[in-house]
Amino acid sequence: MAAAPRTIVTLTTDFGTRDFYVAAMKGALLRHAPDVRLIDVTHEVPRHDILCGSITLERAVDGFLPGTVHLAVVDPGVGTARRILVVELNRQTIVCPDNGLITWAWRRLGPGRAHELIWRPGVASSTFHGRDIMAPAAGMLAAGAAISDLARPIDDPILLDVAPADRESVSARIIHVDAFGNATTNMDYETVRELGQRAFRAGGRMLGHLRRTYWDAAPGEPLALIGSSGLLEVAVRDGSAAQELKLGVGDEVTVE
Amino acid sequence: MAAAPRTIVTLTTDFGTRDFYVAAMKGALLRHAPDVRLIDVTHEVPRHDILCGSITLERAVDGFLPGTVHLAVVDPGVGTARRILVVELNRQTIVCPDNGLITWAWRRLGPGRAHELIWRPGVASSTFHGRDIMAPAAGMLAAGAAISDLARPIDDPILLDVAPADRESVSARIIHVDAFGNATTNMDYETVRELGQRAFRAGGRMLGHLRRTYWDAAPGEPLALIGSSGLLEVAVRDGSAAQELKLGVGDEVTVE
Amino acid sequence: MAAAPRTIVTLTTDFGTRDFYVAAMKGALLRHAPDVRLIDVTHEVPRHDILCGSITLERAVDGFLPGTVHLAVVDPGVGTARRILVVELNRQTIVCPDNGLITWAWRRLGPGRAHELIWRPGVASSTFHGRDIMAPAAGMLAAGAAISDLARPIDDPILLDVAPADRESVSARIIHVDAFGNATTNMDYETVRELGQRAFRAGGRMLGHLRRTYWDAAPGEPLALIGSSGLLEVAVRDGSAAQELKLGVGDEVTVE
Repeated sequence: MAAAPRTIVTLTTDFGTRDFYVAAMKGALLRHAPDVRLIDVTHEVPRHDILCGSITLERAVDGFLPGTVHLAVVDPGVGTARRILVVELNRQTIVCPDNGLITWAWRRLGPGRAHELIWRPGVASSTFHGRDIMAPAAGMLAAGAAISDLARPIDDPILLDVAPADRESVSARIIHVDAFGNATTNMDYETVRELGQRAFRAGGRMLGHLRRTYWDAAPGEPLALIGSSGLLEVAVRDGSAAQELKLGVGDEVTVE
Repeated sequence: MAAAPRTIVTLTTDFGTRDFYVAAMKGALLRHAPDVRLIDVTHEVPRHDILCGSITLERAVDGFLPGTVHLAVVDPGVGTARRILVVELNRQTIVCPDNGLITWAWRRLGPGRAHELIWRPGVASSTFHGRDIMAPAAGMLAAGAAISDLARPIDDPILLDVAPADRESVSARIIHVDAFGNATTNMDYETVRELGQRAFRAGGRMLGHLRRTYWDAAPGEPLALIGSSGLLEVAVRDGSAAQELKLGVGDEVTVE
Repeated sequence: MAAAPRTIVTLTTDFGTRDFYVAAMKGALLRHAPDVRLIDVTHEVPRHDILCGSITLERAVDGFLPGTVHLAVVDPGVGTARRILVVELNRQTIVCPDNGLITWAWRRLGPGRAHELIWRPGVASSTFHGRDIMAPAAGMLAAGAAISDLARPIDDPILLDVAPADRESVSARIIHVDAFGNATTNMDYETVRELGQRAFRAGGRMLGHLRRTYWDAAPGEPLALIGSSGLLEVAVRDGSAAQELKLGVGDEVTVE
């Protein structure tokens, strides 16, 4: 008889991979949950970029099975009175600072049930709550602790001003640019489909109709397609849309 | 009694580590194989560099035990009709696009038995077959599925134009440059040994006879030695051969 | 009944993450210890920077439970007669080259008991003892081998000229700069506390009294605080102390 699969804990931070910070967090977590499987989502969220962390965290929540615990730490307010969240969402559990990091998962896959972490360790640094508070809490939750033993319900988690595009919308906003320069918008596949055979424009360039793959464009040509997140994406075949169309987060993609 | 060791699945991609793509692939894989051990080989293969991916994949196949499954995704043709391979080689299993990525493992450790993956999921994106097709297939194989249930034999996997240097050869080609600037060639130890006490030349510089370690050269001096892959390598002690001798993939190293 | 938690093996190297070297080391280790949990501390120690590796290794030893095995490879002397150490310290085991890499763990958490590894494999490369000698040794130790079966006691491990600041000291030295530009010194919290309400100076700038968190300084302001290592640290709120105060390893922080 096979043992039950180990609980998965994913990690998303802006700590980088050069220093020992990520390992310190893992060491703290494993003290409370020695049997979990750890999955690094990324530690290269740009420093203090809560929106980027939020988009990344949503992908983690979407990509893993019910029961997974997600620990996300992009925490410019560490050491202040900002709250720490425990959120149930999509049958998974998220531990993160209450600074908007939960936004995109909440808006696309939720809403969820939000709690404020009240558990605190005997001693904690003022500069590294990821290691001293959030990792142990995520560990305890992964090891089976009840949320109600560590946290109390709240109804006002901080949410950033970013949301999926309205179904009636004729414009989308770029919410994320990946390392290849592909620009993801806030418009989902269903909204794009309801728009019918319309053309897209971004960075002053016509992108034409929606394509199915990069190969439906000529080398170097910009295009609009549905990316792997299920969202409208602007890309350049064999190139970087961000660079060649000078696109960044917040820029508009219009439907003509 | 100890349980049988968990099956190892290695991952080699050009996805980078900034985005959520690697985690998305792992999430998909673990749905089919919740107990495997995941080992990242690298996700920093230069984008779309199939040769570099191929050299890296061979090292993974050489470095792990029989029974290991290797998932390699450098896939510029994603969304086109290019095939996906399942290859048995060196008593291990490799899943990768059929674009030449298998070449170096095939030529150095094989040949193997090639199959075309015919299994497809109910729904797949057009842009991320690593997550939607190859990761689940690798997961199923790691969990014990028979290759014949997912794939059919083929005899014409695509192979790049790179091969180990002939035993009679008096020149080698650089096939890989590592992050330190060490340049690995396609000439193996046995061939070098048969050449006897000959001198090497690269980038217009004499390297002299084969050395045993970096320390057999003076600081800053270029040298030829057998690298950890068992292949002739050009290095500069405490420096970068690629930079200082202006060496790149495809350049010749001659035997004088 | 839950199984005993798996032994943890941490990895700290200067190999980078672009090449297959880290995976090669893991493959070699897992042959001897198929059930261990592997934790990457970092593979981005600057090449051949033994001091940086030493600071990082101490953090790993501090952050994990008794029984953990640490494999640290920053090894410019590979292929020479330099010894390989097995050190018992803080109820953990460390395997690393005898070139000073053990220093900071030895000085802050030790002293420990040092041994010279005498075990050697049948065949080893001259350029990659991390894979060929140290990884198998760490694997055997993690799998339960006795140190006395692989190594013999020595009393003269090589130690770098870096030590915690004296309790009577009125100056500290910067020993590490992290990726964010925070500069960690060799002065621990207890020493700082004994100094009482004194002011600090670094890079020609007054830092004032010790602060508790980054938020106790204005944006862009330099400050002194106790970092997550329990050591005096110089930081700039929302900025890089290394850049803005031109601080590097070896620079002085004075107490006024």
